[in-house]
Amino acid sequence: MSVSAKWLNKVKWDEHGLVPVIAQEVGTNDVLMFAWMNREALEKTITSGEAIYWSRSRKKLWHKGEESGHTQKVHEVRLDCDEDVVLLKVEQVGAIACHTGRHSCFFQKFEGDVKEGDWQTVEPVLKDPQTFYK
Amino acid sequence: MSVSAKWLNKVKWDEHGLVPVIAQEVGTNDVLMFAWMNREALEKTITSGEAIYWSRSRKKLWHKGEESGHTQKVHEVRLDCDEDVVLLKVEQVGAIACHTGRHSCFFQKFEGDVKEGDWQTVEPVLKDPQTFYK
Repeated sequence: MSVSAKWLNKVKWDEHGLVPVIAQEVGTNDVLMFAWMNREALEKTITSGEAIYWSRSRKKLWHKGEESGHTQKVHEVRLDCDEDVVLLKVEQVGAIACHTGRHSCFFQKFEGDVKEGDWQTVEPVLKDPQTFYK
Repeated sequence: MSVSAKWLNKVKWDEHGLVPVIAQEVGTNDVLMFAWMNREALEKTITSGEAIYWSRSRKKLWHKGEESGHTQKVHEVRLDCDEDVVLLKVEQVGAIACHTGRHSCFFQKFEGDVKEGDWQTVEPVLKDPQTFYK
């Protein structure tokens, strides 16, 4: 089903046929989440204009927001110098990217020293996940 | 040599003992690069205050900027909701993160449609790499 486009061939897919993807919010430049795409996911992201990832746990395409409604409208797709990492610049619908109901998935911050330090939650839950997952 | 700290055990290292790492610039919030860390790299990043990655190609620790001088001073270390991705907020010395002499590694932008589109270089080279690599 996949097109044999030159731009898709330029991406260096890993041994599982995947590429790491960073989703960054347009405007704030906040890093929202990290996920993976296979060839079909990247192609469908371009054609649909919404972020479609590959779920490694469920082993299927994952249209981000399909359950929660928190879809991502894709403004830009970028590729890094080694052609093995993709960066999406997205508009985050509902301002919530994380399944915990937070804006970004990166809400745990390391505080303290190397021996006694730990990860601390430093970002608020904006919406109870029970309200957007069935 | 690694400390057996609780915070290091909380990170879900992959089957190769690695975790993906996103480096984001403090201030601009630009995503500069993507790399990997093993346990020792993350520990040394915390103790040294500079980004130390694991080079998968060279199979050794990689103190970012060791050759180019473009080190990264780490202001914050974050972990995502699944505890399997790290985000560094860094001050990029020399304003150049990419080995091509560009600010960010993500300088190729997809333009066009799914069939005829391609990756276009949209960011300038700030400094000739020959001036900072021997």
